[in-house]
Amino acid sequence: MTYCVAIDLDDGLVFASDSRTNAGVDQVSTYSKMHTFEIEGQRLFVVLAAGNLATTQAVVNRLQREMEEAGQEGAAEPNLATVAHMSEAAEYLGRINREEQEKHSEALSKSGMKADATLIIGGQIAGEPPAIYLVYPQGNYITTSQHTRFLQIGESKYGKPILDRIIEAETPLGNAARCALVSIDSTVRSNLTVGPPIEVLVYERDTLEMDHYLCLEAEDEYLRSLTHAWDENVKKAFTDLPRFDWEHRHGRKDRGTRVSRRAKKKS
Amino acid sequence: MTYCVAIDLDDGLVFASDSRTNAGVDQVSTYSKMHTFEIEGQRLFVVLAAGNLATTQAVVNRLQREMEEAGQEGAAEPNLATVAHMSEAAEYLGRINREEQEKHSEALSKSGMKADATLIIGGQIAGEPPAIYLVYPQGNYITTSQHTRFLQIGESKYGKPILDRIIEAETPLGNAARCALVSIDSTVRSNLTVGPPIEVLVYERDTLEMDHYLCLEAEDEYLRSLTHAWDENVKKAFTDLPRFDWEHRHGRKDRGTRVSRRAKKKS
Repeated sequence: MTYCVAIDLDDGLVFASDSRTNAGVDQVSTYSKMHTFEIEGQRLFVVLAAGNLATTQAVVNRLQREMEEAGQEGAAEPNLATVAHMSEAAEYLGRINREEQEKHSEALSKSGMKADATLIIGGQIAGEPPAIYLVYPQGNYITTSQHTRFLQIGESKYGKPILDRIIEAETPLGNAARCALVSIDSTVRSNLTVGPPIEVLVYERDTLEMDHYLCLEAEDEYLRSLTHAWDENVKKAFTDLPRFDWEHRHGRKDRGTRVSRRAKKKS
Repeated sequence: MTYCVAIDLDDGLVFASDSRTNAGVDQVSTYSKMHTFEIEGQRLFVVLAAGNLATTQAVVNRLQREMEEAGQEGAAEPNLATVAHMSEAAEYLGRINREEQEKHSEALSKSGMKADATLIIGGQIAGEPPAIYLVYPQGNYITTSQHTRFLQIGESKYGKPILDRIIEAETPLGNAARCALVSIDSTVRSNLTVGPPIEVLVYERDTLEMDHYLCLEAEDEYLRSLTHAWDENVKKAFTDLPRFDWEHRHGRKDRGTRVSRRAKKKS
């Protein structure tokens, strides 16, 4: 599996992804799921990929090739060098994704497998606001709203609660990047198919450059200090919660104070 | 959907469940998913149910009826009044579950629906240790281990990370019940199909009685104070995390200190 998250903030964008790929428990490998495409000072895109590895690799290679061939005779149009808006980039990525899936989906389905890939594309084109889009295997896509500032792909449920609590449009980039790491750490702890190295990319609005990129191995000093502190802090947060009435009223083995609301009736 | 969790501790057992049932977004109802069966001073069982509501209701009714008929002529054997071990109760529940599903599964599958139900059964029989079992739709079942002290059914992923962090065999019953509530609260926040009232039942080992039962509506004072405190504490836990290097080194708009590891190369 995979877990990737992109966050759209007033100050810019944050991208984070794990690097574990598996085709069965005995075929686990490490592949980056974060891919960047940049024309310096003009536009940059970050693509996060989940799903069939052959499809996502084919999609990423084609995005790269078509961008490099832009302006040459017979070049594919549009491409990442020529799209005018982020939504057009999402539309283009959706089409490429569908086309690459279709090449092998029939053969794969005969083997009970799927060519499906789900992607996130985010970034900024000069003169346009930054944006992130989630592109489905069918080629359609969604973006964020004022109240939903993040998009997730892959094994997304374990890491969603902390994002729901912390992320708002006004969240500073550093906090959002930390929250993405915590979200991935929670997922790694709860699900074997998601694992380090964890990549984080922070983009500050209107810089049109990749501002901060980190690739954190499991033994990375910052990642260890972060996950250790988070574990300690969450445990402390938990310890400080209000007690049940029955915990105040008696010690553990005091039979006399059992609450009167007892067994529920059935059905 | 549904979310239920059962926890097996040195001090006893904790059960918790939400109460939202839906067949499509416009058909949302409130049904308890926690059912108790007790022969005072001799044995007690708690059943948590997820899946097809018709199946789980039929299963629970049958458990109840067969227990009540125990000892009468022609009574079904075994039943909850006669099983000798908790694993036998799980085996029995698995069979009942499969039989009730089979009654309607063919007709349901023609409509593209499933009769599947997944259940947890826990409790204690006098002279036996307390135990919890998860019973799959196919009738097979698993229990806990020294390192895995809890079992979940339904929409379980959102609420798993906090259980993974907090629950150990030695966790006191109050802490475990609170952790179950926090786990359900995280799920409720992240997934519309899980909702209050939330039921919690705490069983102290060897009492052979339901020790503490709470049914918490959304506006319940304790639930509100707990979820509010948890939200505050988690936000504080998050604020106290170690900063990235680049946050120390410069203010948000200082271009001069961008880290040297920049855009990753593609593919």
